[in-house]
Amino acid sequence: MAESARRGRGGGGAARRAARSAVSFETAKYIERNIPNYEVLTEEALEVIEYNADTVLEEIGVNFPDNPEALALWRAAGAEVTGDRVRIPRGLARELCKTAPSQFTQHARNPARNVEIGGRNLVLAPVYGPPFVRDTAGGRRYATMDDFNKFVKLGYMSKWLHHSGGTVCEPTDVPVNKRHLDMLHAHMTLSDKPFMGSVTEPSRAQDSVDMCKILFGADFVDQNTVMTSLVNINSPLTFDDVMMGALKVFAENNQASIISPFIVGGAMAPVSVAGTLTQVLAEVMAGIAYSQLIRKGAPVIFGAFVTSIDMNSGAPTFGTPEAAHITYGAGQLARRMNLPFRSSGSFCGSKLPDAQAAYETANSLNMGLLSGVNFMLHACGWLEGGLVASFEKFVMDADQLGALHHLARGVQIDENAQAMDAIREVGPGGHYLGCAHTQANFKEAFWKSDLLDYKPFETWSDEGARDTQALAAARVEKLLGDYVQPEMDPDTRAALDAFVANRKAAEPDSFM
Amino acid sequence: MAESARRGRGGGGAARRAARSAVSFETAKYIERNIPNYEVLTEEALEVIEYNADTVLEEIGVNFPDNPEALALWRAAGAEVTGDRVRIPRGLARELCKTAPSQFTQHARNPARNVEIGGRNLVLAPVYGPPFVRDTAGGRRYATMDDFNKFVKLGYMSKWLHHSGGTVCEPTDVPVNKRHLDMLHAHMTLSDKPFMGSVTEPSRAQDSVDMCKILFGADFVDQNTVMTSLVNINSPLTFDDVMMGALKVFAENNQASIISPFIVGGAMAPVSVAGTLTQVLAEVMAGIAYSQLIRKGAPVIFGAFVTSIDMNSGAPTFGTPEAAHITYGAGQLARRMNLPFRSSGSFCGSKLPDAQAAYETANSLNMGLLSGVNFMLHACGWLEGGLVASFEKFVMDADQLGALHHLARGVQIDENAQAMDAIREVGPGGHYLGCAHTQANFKEAFWKSDLLDYKPFETWSDEGARDTQALAAARVEKLLGDYVQPEMDPDTRAALDAFVANRKAAEPDSFM
Repeated sequence: MAESARRGRGGGGAARRAARSAVSFETAKYIERNIPNYEVLTEEALEVIEYNADTVLEEIGVNFPDNPEALALWRAAGAEVTGDRVRIPRGLARELCKTAPSQFTQHARNPARNVEIGGRNLVLAPVYGPPFVRDTAGGRRYATMDDFNKFVKLGYMSKWLHHSGGTVCEPTDVPVNKRHLDMLHAHMTLSDKPFMGSVTEPSRAQDSVDMCKILFGADFVDQNTVMTSLVNINSPLTFDDVMMGALKVFAENNQASIISPFIVGGAMAPVSVAGTLTQVLAEVMAGIAYSQLIRKGAPVIFGAFVTSIDMNSGAPTFGTPEAAHITYGAGQLARRMNLPFRSSGSFCGSKLPDAQAAYETANSLNMGLLSGVNFMLHACGWLEGGLVASFEKFVMDADQLGALHHLARGVQIDENAQAMDAIREVGPGGHYLGCAHTQANFKEAFWKSDLLDYKPFETWSDEGARDTQALAAARVEKLLGDYVQPEMDPDTRAALDAFVANRKAAEPDSFM
Repeated sequence: MAESARRGRGGGGAARRAARSAVSFETAKYIERNIPNYEVLTEEALEVIEYNADTVLEEIGVNFPDNPEALALWRAAGAEVTGDRVRIPRGLARELCKTAPSQFTQHARNPARNVEIGGRNLVLAPVYGPPFVRDTAGGRRYATMDDFNKFVKLGYMSKWLHHSGGTVCEPTDVPVNKRHLDMLHAHMTLSDKPFMGSVTEPSRAQDSVDMCKILFGADFVDQNTVMTSLVNINSPLTFDDVMMGALKVFAENNQASIISPFIVGGAMAPVSVAGTLTQVLAEVMAGIAYSQLIRKGAPVIFGAFVTSIDMNSGAPTFGTPEAAHITYGAGQLARRMNLPFRSSGSFCGSKLPDAQAAYETANSLNMGLLSGVNFMLHACGWLEGGLVASFEKFVMDADQLGALHHLARGVQIDENAQAMDAIREVGPGGHYLGCAHTQANFKEAFWKSDLLDYKPFETWSDEGARDTQALAAARVEKLLGDYVQPEMDPDTRAALDAFVANRKAAEPDSFM
């Protein structure tokens, strides 16, 4: 994507000045992997899946219901259109995908927090979509705008989180047709990290673009990507007109979309890994090809939200080996298309931020890093299969994201890292705690949790024998207490406030 | 290792007959990996570390204190011996290691539970060494023989655990000089899985061999490996005479030893990954070379117990990215020596089987699988940095080991796995729950936990809103209630009982 040296009217320069003078909380740079990706599929398996995905597009095709405009674009591109069904000749979808960029910059209002999406980078964003929240004090309850604001604040203060996300929880106390305005306003004003736009109606996608023009300046938005939004495919093989309408708004405005199959294996895709990957690839190729029919070069991400199912209860299951196979394989397929890849997250099925949640989440986060994910949505805070955003789990997972950063650094092999002088100094039977090499290196040597308990048993007991959830509850309270809002140019803020007020006044509330 | 077709006097044939008639609990076959290993070190980094390890052995050397016999062996092999210090010319240690087998069979009294150690296999064994136990009902307390027996029973009934282990906890109510007899007796009689011998005195190693001769028959033990025992190196670079004495007994009797540096990085090794790996390699090469000086061809395992340190408290930390780097690298170094590799486990620093424990453990288990570990000691039940064996965590971790089995299967790509008929049958907008392919494949498609909660929120709430620890406590109780002892030939049992009684009577109790 083109980098713009200067920003337009309104937000840009003022926002930058404001950011410099604000109390700032440290945010790590997005992860630049210095470790290999993990690949489970052989070359032969990849070729079979790619061939089959083209067969799916050619023989079976995909549906674009209630969307004559999309059908016309497909017909013009050479697809065979019958009713809502679009059959895409072998090779065409992959060819159309080639105009999508392999990497792009998503700008934040604080330029220090811009992120590079694609290549060997990994950008971490919080949980998206839960209608419920949970914390120790209040239990499980419908999410409100107050909860939403708290999550944005926690995200802003989380060192290892690069992105403010989107619908961190559904603010159910705000009308459905207006909550996107409050959510965007919160991301724009309570944080200075990059964020996502609304996809629930094309008009709300347009509101998202319009608010970004206030925040960043209209010229800047025309030339740069300032939002990455989540466009789900209605798997199997169906492209919802509302989602496609949002995609159209974003693509036309050069804003990024994650084109993401939403698959519970065994329900929305075959029970086999290879079959699921075939369907994922067919769906993503069709979706990304369509984005490029709207606007060549529009930034997009190869998405894969894929999990398995408990065939007894029908419940989706998370952190499973099959999800890992699919994610590793999808990463390989995305890289062969030279596209940024989105998958993984703090996935779990547990009702509580307990050991089950942590096993499932750690399985998923590790798999995400090693599979080459470039944009990890749901990287912290996910609970109960995505029905719940958990305050405690948000900070628990966010802490684990620090371990991913350190893992991604890889292994140094320079003379200092070789440490031969230390081994010589200490010798057989000695210890390294006081040696010169240890003194010079210990501060940077090991990742250290800001949350987990490393104290002696007696100290831990004296302090109340707290489990991780209790430690996390205390950390949530501390972070929210320490929160300081990043500064913003008052004119920009007033313009954003006015936009939201005007749009809210323009139509009646709807809770449908 | 040579496979022996028949067993000798006493245990063998009778034990096999007993095993066939006993109530049997399913045990999965050891893992045969069908997935790649994960490798973080480049060829160049590996060569640097290998060169430096030889420099350590040549310039600095290793200590074999209070062990004139070992020093004589080293001198005869061409090392330079000064006092306790053994300096090994470049290349000699690696050359001596070449007679160690790359893979061996450890026999169990139930031949269906024999394990293959080395190659692409992974054998899972439980926690080893904690002086304390913990469960929800009784809290944290010193371990007793009753606790030990319960853990052996749980291990016997754990489908995904291939090995009964060794000192699953320290039975502190039995005299130090006699507890090895009771522990071996428990492994031999309460389980029919393979087990470990005692290393705390050479005489106890000899007792282990003698008891195995009763269980398996003397000829069988002479010709086959029936124990894998844990020989720790006193890092840095020191080989304790007690451990070396135990190694000698086992090597002379063709029994396997894990030669394992015991390293908290920053204390017993440099704070850097490359420095630690250099020391690990030097120590393992010296230890395995020594085993081959005792008896060429003695089965051994390249061990690496390595973790990081919290530089504030001095506490060891687990499931960290640095431990992962070291384990991945050590796996590469072990494979380049063509030796079986031991590392990883259910490592955690947490005091409770909570989310911290599960994050740390899942990080460690995943890393263990992908690093190519062949023998994973501590694969379940480890808590509080190894001070505590947790009953609940034992079954929690043992359940996660099922996920490792499924992950290791890799991805099928045959026609059934491609599932093209299913995709054709279902088509855009359909669902796969009832389609023919799903019906034919769903039972084997997905790993399913025997412990974790997948129920709807309301059902879970009605059943008491239990967390993982509570679910695990119920599972421990259920498994111990369902336990049925595997049958054993009465003469063999009587001979084992008599051996233990005689050895106990032969010396006074010692609790030192």
